[in-house]
Amino acid sequence: TPFTRRRGSSPPLSSRENQSAAYMFDSQQEAKHLFEMMIHPVTPQKFFNELWEKKPLMVKRRNPNYNNGWFSTQELDRILREVGAFIFEAGFYGISQEHLNFTENIDVVTYENGKRETHNPVGRAYAPVLWDHFQNGCSVRLLNPQSYSRNVWKYLSVLQEYFGCFAGANVYLTPPGTQGFAPHYDDIEAFILQLEGKKRWRLYDPRNDAEKLARFSSGNFSEDDIGNPIFDVILEAGDLLYFPRGTIHQACHFASGCTLEDDHSLHITVSVSQLNSWGDLLQKVLPRALDIAIDEDVEFRQSLPRDYLRYMGVAFSDQVCPERHQFMRRIEQLMMKLLSYAPVDAGVDQMGVKFITDSLPPVLTRTESACSIHGNGERWDDERQCIAGGVELQPDTEVKLIRQGCLRLVSENDSVSIYHNLENSRTYHQRECRKLDVAAEVAPAVEYLLHTYPDFVSIDDLPLEDVTDKVGLAVTMYEQGLLLTKEPLVPLSDSECDESPVEM
Amino acid sequence: TPFTRRRGSSPPLSSRENQSAAYMFDSQQEAKHLFEMMIHPVTPQKFFNELWEKKPLMVKRRNPNYNNGWFSTQELDRILREVGAFIFEAGFYGISQEHLNFTENIDVVTYENGKRETHNPVGRAYAPVLWDHFQNGCSVRLLNPQSYSRNVWKYLSVLQEYFGCFAGANVYLTPPGTQGFAPHYDDIEAFILQLEGKKRWRLYDPRNDAEKLARFSSGNFSEDDIGNPIFDVILEAGDLLYFPRGTIHQACHFASGCTLEDDHSLHITVSVSQLNSWGDLLQKVLPRALDIAIDEDVEFRQSLPRDYLRYMGVAFSDQVCPERHQFMRRIEQLMMKLLSYAPVDAGVDQMGVKFITDSLPPVLTRTESACSIHGNGERWDDERQCIAGGVELQPDTEVKLIRQGCLRLVSENDSVSIYHNLENSRTYHQRECRKLDVAAEVAPAVEYLLHTYPDFVSIDDLPLEDVTDKVGLAVTMYEQGLLLTKEPLVPLSDSECDESPVEM
Amino acid sequence: TPFTRRRGSSPPLSSRENQSAAYMFDSQQEAKHLFEMMIHPVTPQKFFNELWEKKPLMVKRRNPNYNNGWFSTQELDRILREVGAFIFEAGFYGISQEHLNFTENIDVVTYENGKRETHNPVGRAYAPVLWDHFQNGCSVRLLNPQSYSRNVWKYLSVLQEYFGCFAGANVYLTPPGTQGFAPHYDDIEAFILQLEGKKRWRLYDPRNDAEKLARFSSGNFSEDDIGNPIFDVILEAGDLLYFPRGTIHQACHFASGCTLEDDHSLHITVSVSQLNSWGDLLQKVLPRALDIAIDEDVEFRQSLPRDYLRYMGVAFSDQVCPERHQFMRRIEQLMMKLLSYAPVDAGVDQMGVKFITDSLPPVLTRTESACSIHGNGERWDDERQCIAGGVELQPDTEVKLIRQGCLRLVSENDSVSIYHNLENSRTYHQRECRKLDVAAEVAPAVEYLLHTYPDFVSIDDLPLEDVTDKVGLAVTMYEQGLLLTKEPLVPLSDSECDESPVEM
Amino acid sequence: TPFTRRRGSSPPLSSRENQSAAYMFDSQQEAKHLFEMMIHPVTPQKFFNELWEKKPLMVKRRNPNYNNGWFSTQELDRILREVGAFIFEAGFYGISQEHLNFTENIDVVTYENGKRETHNPVGRAYAPVLWDHFQNGCSVRLLNPQSYSRNVWKYLSVLQEYFGCFAGANVYLTPPGTQGFAPHYDDIEAFILQLEGKKRWRLYDPRNDAEKLARFSSGNFSEDDIGNPIFDVILEAGDLLYFPRGTIHQACHFASGCTLEDDHSLHITVSVSQLNSWGDLLQKVLPRALDIAIDEDVEFRQSLPRDYLRYMGVAFSDQVCPERHQFMRRIEQLMMKLLSYAPVDAGVDQMGVKFITDSLPPVLTRTESACSIHGNGERWDDERQCIAGGVELQPDTEVKLIRQGCLRLVSENDSVSIYHNLENSRTYHQRECRKLDVAAEVAPAVEYLLHTYPDFVSIDDLPLEDVTDKVGLAVTMYEQGLLLTKEPLVPLSDSECDESPVEM
Repeated sequence: TPFTRRRGSSPPLSSRENQSAAYMFDSQQEAKHLFEMMIHPVTPQKFFNELWEKKPLMVKRRNPNYNNGWFSTQELDRILREVGAFIFEAGFYGISQEHLNFTENIDVVTYENGKRETHNPVGRAYAPVLWDHFQNGCSVRLLNPQSYSRNVWKYLSVLQEYFGCFAGANVYLTPPGTQGFAPHYDDIEAFILQLEGKKRWRLYDPRNDAEKLARFSSGNFSEDDIGNPIFDVILEAGDLLYFPRGTIHQACHFASGCTLEDDHSLHITVSVSQLNSWGDLLQKVLPRALDIAIDEDVEFRQSLPRDYLRYMGVAFSDQVCPERHQFMRRIEQLMMKLLSYAPVDAGVDQMGVKFITDSLPPVLTRTESACSIHGNGERWDDERQCIAGGVELQPDTEVKLIRQGCLRLVSENDSVSIYHNLENSRTYHQRECRKLDVAAEVAPAVEYLLHTYPDFVSIDDLPLEDVTDKVGLAVTMYEQGLLLTKEPLVPLSDSECDESPVEM
Repeated sequence: TPFTRRRGSSPPLSSRENQSAAYMFDSQQEAKHLFEMMIHPVTPQKFFNELWEKKPLMVKRRNPNYNNGWFSTQELDRILREVGAFIFEAGFYGISQEHLNFTENIDVVTYENGKRETHNPVGRAYAPVLWDHFQNGCSVRLLNPQSYSRNVWKYLSVLQEYFGCFAGANVYLTPPGTQGFAPHYDDIEAFILQLEGKKRWRLYDPRNDAEKLARFSSGNFSEDDIGNPIFDVILEAGDLLYFPRGTIHQACHFASGCTLEDDHSLHITVSVSQLNSWGDLLQKVLPRALDIAIDEDVEFRQSLPRDYLRYMGVAFSDQVCPERHQFMRRIEQLMMKLLSYAPVDAGVDQMGVKFITDSLPPVLTRTESACSIHGNGERWDDERQCIAGGVELQPDTEVKLIRQGCLRLVSENDSVSIYHNLENSRTYHQRECRKLDVAAEVAPAVEYLLHTYPDFVSIDDLPLEDVTDKVGLAVTMYEQGLLLTKEPLVPLSDSECDESPVEM
Repeated sequence: TPFTRRRGSSPPLSSRENQSAAYMFDSQQEAKHLFEMMIHPVTPQKFFNELWEKKPLMVKRRNPNYNNGWFSTQELDRILREVGAFIFEAGFYGISQEHLNFTENIDVVTYENGKRETHNPVGRAYAPVLWDHFQNGCSVRLLNPQSYSRNVWKYLSVLQEYFGCFAGANVYLTPPGTQGFAPHYDDIEAFILQLEGKKRWRLYDPRNDAEKLARFSSGNFSEDDIGNPIFDVILEAGDLLYFPRGTIHQACHFASGCTLEDDHSLHITVSVSQLNSWGDLLQKVLPRALDIAIDEDVEFRQSLPRDYLRYMGVAFSDQVCPERHQFMRRIEQLMMKLLSYAPVDAGVDQMGVKFITDSLPPVLTRTESACSIHGNGERWDDERQCIAGGVELQPDTEVKLIRQGCLRLVSENDSVSIYHNLENSRTYHQRECRKLDVAAEVAPAVEYLLHTYPDFVSIDDLPLEDVTDKVGLAVTMYEQGLLLTKEPLVPLSDSECDESPVEM
Repeated sequence: TPFTRRRGSSPPLSSRENQSAAYMFDSQQEAKHLFEMMIHPVTPQKFFNELWEKKPLMVKRRNPNYNNGWFSTQELDRILREVGAFIFEAGFYGISQEHLNFTENIDVVTYENGKRETHNPVGRAYAPVLWDHFQNGCSVRLLNPQSYSRNVWKYLSVLQEYFGCFAGANVYLTPPGTQGFAPHYDDIEAFILQLEGKKRWRLYDPRNDAEKLARFSSGNFSEDDIGNPIFDVILEAGDLLYFPRGTIHQACHFASGCTLEDDHSLHITVSVSQLNSWGDLLQKVLPRALDIAIDEDVEFRQSLPRDYLRYMGVAFSDQVCPERHQFMRRIEQLMMKLLSYAPVDAGVDQMGVKFITDSLPPVLTRTESACSIHGNGERWDDERQCIAGGVELQPDTEVKLIRQGCLRLVSENDSVSIYHNLENSRTYHQRECRKLDVAAEVAPAVEYLLHTYPDFVSIDDLPLEDVTDKVGLAVTMYEQGLLLTKEPLVPLSDSECDESPVEM
């Protein structure tokens, strides 16, 4: 199995760089393997049957390198020094993205005597300033490390396909002998990967049914609020801890009753399932269901009884009278009818578009880049001072989607749109996702590409009437970066300049 | 019966001024009588069983004065001259409200050759300018005549209690030989009272089921759109025409096939039931039902299946697979559960507050004024140059609500509020309705006043523990204008100045 | 002199009602007379030479009725009872304006032990509730009495023409033995007219030059802030007190050292000259002057010296160097040049439009009403059920403006606009003033009407080429209510209905 | 001279990379040298005396490499491929900035038959898509190349210090035989550096005085609008063309009468002096001058004459009367007085802050980086898994500002602020510039650093009382990246971990 295949690799994640040729032949498979590795040796089947949204899991690995490849304190140091730096060595040609700021991108905090304090300076987060704070006992929280770390970006972009929802992350670095955050619960399913050092975690049951699978994060609790822990463990480098949203948790580096070595701790929290519940879907479906019912069913448009204000209302809720009974029966009947008007599939598409909007763009392998517009096609030939390398999709060119989960096909009124995440920012919601309007007639061809994924298909096999339409759709999608070709397209003429069409 | 009592009076409505002492002993009864008179000789029972929201009704009266008292062309002329005039004779001491403006308050339009045109000048509607347009063939529409005509205000404020929803009106004056408006349907139940002259009306069935009891008014239709009339009648002064929302209608003053005398036409359209349907109530109830279910029921908070985006959605709606089936079953179960969380009474209270917000303030009789803060209490005694006339509510003072429908008692979170329309503007939605927050403990006393209406009750009978609380609530409501006393309160000392408390 | 003419009348203001035929033949004269009466026996010449914006003035009249006609406590009582009342006797046909609210329209306050407190209840100001507070020692402030009192409206609308700026007012009613407001200064020239009872006033010099003719009102001072009074007087009914803006003042009803009878006090404060200074005009002129200079003069468009940031700026202000000197010289030269670009007349027109926007609409006499669209022209003849009374302006009709100060003619870009206050609200700034765009060619005719005021002129004398244009302009202005005819226009045919043009 | 020193280098700009140790010892000198090189062999003195803002200049170089180092078509190709790419080789550790979008960052346009058309696709600018358009005859405009090209960034950040205002750039790439843009003029002083190929330029005088040194760019002209060219030249690689704002220009690649080789053309336009004129300064100074005058001088607060609206205004501008004369005289006097209130230095500081806001952050040499917080200080020692490298500023540490023009010291009310551009984005106005509030007492020390630049000074020499304050200010500025040390600070202890202060 793919999982076994990877098992020997030690550390498993970081070694995968070298497999770039084979990498990503199937984004769903890839996602599955990544998750299997994360929770190994627990199987996904067992995990989703017994633990998911039910109870915490800790996996002890006795292998401090098991989680290697995700992130390190050294990477944090380099990010602080090099991202947005005003000088750097060539290698990559362009200019780095803008620098990190305190508060916006990174926090330095203390938690002492039950009180959390933020110590963020104003402005740019220079490495020496950050390390000064760290040495003075501040914990560091790096928000959205996927914006700066290529590996975090890559892993999260893979995991999001597995979970069908946005996968986020934060990184926490704690100096020896301190505690970073007050007890609280979050609104996400949390996977804690301990990367360096050790940390003691204590988990507590949700305080009541309403806090189970909590929809919104809590404020900070005091020790008095939270009862006894159901879990009190030392997480060591290589270990994993999972707990459902609503689970109260606190982490300490040094606490009465536990002696940890004089060492820093670094972990990354991977989060999924925020606002991704049945209730969230119903919030999209129900108002539209009612709108449709009102449009289509005259019973929903009939006036309320003339005198209903005189027996309905909270002030009348204790009264027993036939009018109330009849009124409530009518409400019941109408709500039953509502079911048949519920646009569930359209609601799911709204969730799907939200997912595309939230999601990270894919990280491509060199092979993928070479087989797509990302790395192939016309380029400036500096020697000959002209454009060269032009390529063309042909009816027999074999193509597939670059990722199965990178687009959503949606019917809106009479038009059809492809929402895709190829132009998303690595920073959450910085840009709208790209929307590509296509003719309703080509929808089946896009669906065909979705259903045949991960296999390559000839452009000629697309279920469209006309070969021009087939190639036209393929070119449109290729130029948006959505299609991979099976082989790198061969330039029309490799040894000379492309002829300019206007010259013909 | 009250109805019989009024029957002999001719014209029935206008004569009621003189009965002010007895008038309004019971706003519900009063409302019923007014409506009975409007549709006489049809009975309300027959009307609501057979016609309401089903089919049109015309009542021919052969009595041109039957609708007198509502409005007249003469009243329109006086309104234009006197409202907002810069000079006027004493009588009423204060200053008139602001003048009428074209477009905002009054329209002049033509409808010729199937095309409607608006001819509104800019700015103030001076009477001569309006009559000029009228003589040139323009129809006149006066919007919200209740803002200027005391009788329209009074009748609408009574009708709104009967229908449990806002009652509005427009007045239409058409010169001889013209048609004022294109065929269309409206979003309200329409009662047309012909006041002067004659007019030919043609009604057409809704064009399809979706337009029955239409929720929103249509645009203008051409003759080709609407088929054959189901009703083609001449309405004469004193007659009534009713038709449900969605009924296409057009009125003409002169048309091929019908010869009307060379006379103007004046009618008032009374409208009810706008956005007052079961669907409107559900729009308030359902989102809150879902919020409550999500809060209270963990099943609504569970994550959607990891892979649902791969088999749900419009692109997959033709597929048959067990996952889809199971997904839809789950939606069904959750929607069934929703019923038990639906806050129907709270939703009705929202509708009730909306009604208070929309509604007109009451018109009071002189007796009512004398028995309330509106006409009784401290006044400036100009002769003695001091305050006189102070009155006090006592435990044995008998009181009742000034109208049953002028307030709504609502529980919001932990507090209780009385929304009332006593300070509403006569202009629709110009001000928020007044909200009076009271202690939760006094709610039963307010309910008691609602349930005992129209009888007077002693303040001492209010279901509160303490006599101070009883009088306190009564004073609060009295000072908001909400309570009537059975007899005008007698000033503490009629022949001298009130002593000032600060002097004691 | 006009002043003498009125002198015999006692009380002078209130008797003027009966002179309505002659009244307002010249709004400037009328304004002058009113002001002469206000400050009598001081003459305007003396007042503006010696006192205006310089020092306070008190006029003792020994005639308690001298200020009669402005306002009274009785009028306040009637306003509270009748404005917005839900019932009233006929007389005036229409409906009264909306009721008064606490805070928005009327305040009840106390000032005790140096601390001001506002006791405004929420919502409608019912008379008994207000008098209750008054009896408990609250002072009453009625804001903008011109919105409710016809006389205050009339006097202010006349005074505004005299001062060329908005004239406002507030009314203060104080119970015996209290003080209503803390010491402070205002941003307006204040004329205090004592209407009933007595009040002790103490005035204090501005504390420094910057507070002289203060542009903005002060906060409340304590006794320690303000030094010794320069004025300590008892104002009695009929008296006048004037003081310039910036003068600190306090009024008390009863204070140590002074014993006032046990009586209430009522006064009205008339205010003028708010934001109406040379500086206000320059604020309109200067930015446009600079815009014009930059457009027209290349010297203003030349770049600043390359290195000016290295010797100019506050950090360099102590340095002496030739570059600084030269830079400052250049600034000086440019500012001198600016003068020649200053659009002073256009700036004055902006001030003029602001005045029209701020100003009250005129109060008309019955004669004025009868000679204008306000009272003349087509009306509904209820007996004959038709329109009658149509009138027409003829070339030989003699006309004049209804007031000289009710309009402002302004050139804006290539168009010419007449701004007028005829449709202004009595409530400050409730509506934009009306703007009437006319052809640039007719501007001289409008100017002719301004310059010939208060004389009547034949329409035929308007300096326009074409008689059609002359009558056209006259009709346009007449229909906006701007023109008076010398005699009431005689209806075309008094004994029959107007023929409708469409019938011809 | 420095100029001579660099003259031998061929190509001069590109070779400077190697001089990084000496580079930037004085940003003013550096800026001067760069500009000298740009216009060589014309001297700055001659340029600013005879040409600047007066007439165009062309320098023929006969050296196609003279402008090398600024930009190339090859660099454009790499930017399109590598900026925002989803895959890239290590080298630089972080992640590249976001990709380029059409319209936002890059335009593709044609200009044919006098008509300009934009052909921008939607979304991301993939290189093959851009080159396709180029081959089809589109010109390419890259906006703000400084955001992507390190050299453009570096040169512009140097030039901005020379000109004391924002220096911007655009890059234009034109395919053979086409014209990219219609004739027009711009609002900036333009320096055209021809980088590759040739282009024919035609310049035309401003059409009138108002367009000289135009404040705003024009729309597109047709040939008929612009008369005969004053300049008709072929610009070849290595050449320079300068012209003042307001100069109408058009460039063509191939035109009747001129035959250019079949080659593309690439040039960069460097722009300065946008909205940086005396008029712009006065727009900041005058309103505040008037505010101050109104505050301080009672004459500005005196009321306008009561009757001024009756003789001032555009309608009265032709009248001759003493009141007008006197009014205008008064305006003159007040404007003369205004001069003495004009806060010229404060206005310059506002311009200075605007410059800091607009400006690019500096590009640092490796030496500069090593001698500042940008490259020195605490770092993560991955081997020892601890923080190492801590440094400390001492009283005898010698420091200087990192650039003279990177900060502006401003007094605002009672506080003193340092505005600096160290955290500015390379994208124009993407972020506010950083503002650092300091105590008023330390202002002289900051001024001292400004005046002693480019010399190093001991922290101990800062003109402050207390050595703690001296070091405190130095640390604050050092941690904002504003200070360079003469030598790289030596870590406290290089061979071991820094001791954590909290442990002590």
